[in-house]
Amino acid sequence: MNIRTKIKETLLKMQEDVTKNLLSFDPDIKFQEDIWKRSTDLNKDEGGGITRIFSDGEVFERGGVNFSEVYGSITKELCEVMPGAKEGGEFYATGTSLVIHPRSPKIPTVHANYRFMQCGEGVHLKSWFGGGADLTPYTVNYDDFIHFHTTLKDGCDLHDKDYYPRFKKWCDEYFYLPHRKESRGIGGIFFDYLGIDEPSELPRISDFVGEMSSSFCQTYFPIVERRIAETPTQREREFQLYRRGRYVEFNLLYDRGTKFGLKSNGRVESILMSLPPHANWEYCFKPNLGEEEQLFDILKKPREWIGINLSDQIDINSVAAPSLNVG
Amino acid sequence: MNIRTKIKETLLKMQEDVTKNLLSFDPDIKFQEDIWKRSTDLNKDEGGGITRIFSDGEVFERGGVNFSEVYGSITKELCEVMPGAKEGGEFYATGTSLVIHPRSPKIPTVHANYRFMQCGEGVHLKSWFGGGADLTPYTVNYDDFIHFHTTLKDGCDLHDKDYYPRFKKWCDEYFYLPHRKESRGIGGIFFDYLGIDEPSELPRISDFVGEMSSSFCQTYFPIVERRIAETPTQREREFQLYRRGRYVEFNLLYDRGTKFGLKSNGRVESILMSLPPHANWEYCFKPNLGEEEQLFDILKKPREWIGINLSDQIDINSVAAPSLNVG
Repeated sequence: MNIRTKIKETLLKMQEDVTKNLLSFDPDIKFQEDIWKRSTDLNKDEGGGITRIFSDGEVFERGGVNFSEVYGSITKELCEVMPGAKEGGEFYATGTSLVIHPRSPKIPTVHANYRFMQCGEGVHLKSWFGGGADLTPYTVNYDDFIHFHTTLKDGCDLHDKDYYPRFKKWCDEYFYLPHRKESRGIGGIFFDYLGIDEPSELPRISDFVGEMSSSFCQTYFPIVERRIAETPTQREREFQLYRRGRYVEFNLLYDRGTKFGLKSNGRVESILMSLPPHANWEYCFKPNLGEEEQLFDILKKPREWIGINLSDQIDINSVAAPSLNVG
Repeated sequence: MNIRTKIKETLLKMQEDVTKNLLSFDPDIKFQEDIWKRSTDLNKDEGGGITRIFSDGEVFERGGVNFSEVYGSITKELCEVMPGAKEGGEFYATGTSLVIHPRSPKIPTVHANYRFMQCGEGVHLKSWFGGGADLTPYTVNYDDFIHFHTTLKDGCDLHDKDYYPRFKKWCDEYFYLPHRKESRGIGGIFFDYLGIDEPSELPRISDFVGEMSSSFCQTYFPIVERRIAETPTQREREFQLYRRGRYVEFNLLYDRGTKFGLKSNGRVESILMSLPPHANWEYCFKPNLGEEEQLFDILKKPREWIGINLSDQIDINSVAAPSLNVG
């Protein structure tokens, strides 16, 4: 099967799986589907996408699960982000991208994106895969963090034992807010340009991406299941809204996908669906001495989540709890 | 009097005037003052600032009124934003910057900033002024918009009849969100690099900046006075929170001051005090057919606010009310 056809099926299936899971947890959530066509030139077929937005649910405050497949001429802006691209040449890009913002601060926000890109023609054709999944918690539940990373590692290990450590590090580096000296969340995996210089490896990488996209639901939804019955306090909700301000800061200040989408005249509402429905900012916010401070501490220095001893981890935190100045 | 000493007095007086006005409207507002020192090198005096944050008031949800005076060696990052700056040379920058986010959507958000900058030494010394004031409303009150622009024009006209039209246009161009094809608000004035090539004009420009900073309170607070007794609806409040999302988008995606501050290791909490306390995002938000749509219409194409006939203006809007697709 053609590599494009195969990955497209994989990505559409991922959109479908996540949709089903969202609806099974939240059957009455507002669900909106927009099927759109890309049109920089009305006379050409340039692809399009399926944007699915879930809102005002009991469990999920906002979810966006978008599939897109776009192609056409390479513009000047595209050249800047596509290695080896030449203005006027052809490109192809398909991906599924999702962000889920649960209502309860007990359940972490999740983001995942898997994509396949091509540019150039004939012997100059370049093809590669990119993507990953990362978790942004508002409370500290080590078992959730370990579950998230362990399932990602298990998926990676089936294909290449080097993937998880390499992509975990890449994720920690990518989802970082230099002005806050903080990570966006507890990471996960992130990779880009995979296979670009090894065309013979593309089918194998395609299988890997297929694995990761089809196991995504098992990586995230068991955490939802585990936390769904917990009742958060008002302070936990406020802390979540404050931390979501950081999510906005990352996406608007640093995220390459967001910047590129906006600069290249992408569909604004599909791009910015990653922003949370509500976010707060507070001058010189001070975390409380317990769980909030622990979370800040975790975000200040990325940790390993595989093979750790849970009780050691908790001991470390109850000892090392200096008063942080978040400002 | 030395030009630095004079403008510094002017800017400190502006901070004081705005503080007094805020407190007179909102005597019980939480008022926090932070006096900070800039320190990239502990052995050097490199200036500092006075950050004043007003929060959780009855009238004002958040206000930040910051004075700063910083100086020292020119870093690589500074070179990018200072014309003619050479790495390792000296710079001087002083300014007062403020953002006021009222609680009621009936009262517009205001932003103002006046500053004086210098770089280089001896015959290579470059000095200039920058700044302006702009209004971001959430409801349509033509008399407020006309008052804001008229008082700005009156201040400008005392010094140079060309200033208002030139700086009004500059403001419309600067506070623009290309991805939304919208202005941030109804504008005001904006200027930069004023006097950089005419050192003999600097005392005259300093008087102009003095005029604008001392008349600022008369430009804004009469609007607060006029709207303070009006009771907003819940929908107006939600619309305000939604529009504040745009404020966040502008400040994080485009504002040069914010970007520069964050890139040059500025004091993060002072820089980001411009963000609103609460902001919402909604997928494909649709404004209602009345005032909201009118406001979107105004933001889509900057208007002239001087010498217009108020009844004509209202007629124009009640006729030209096509169903906008905000997405």
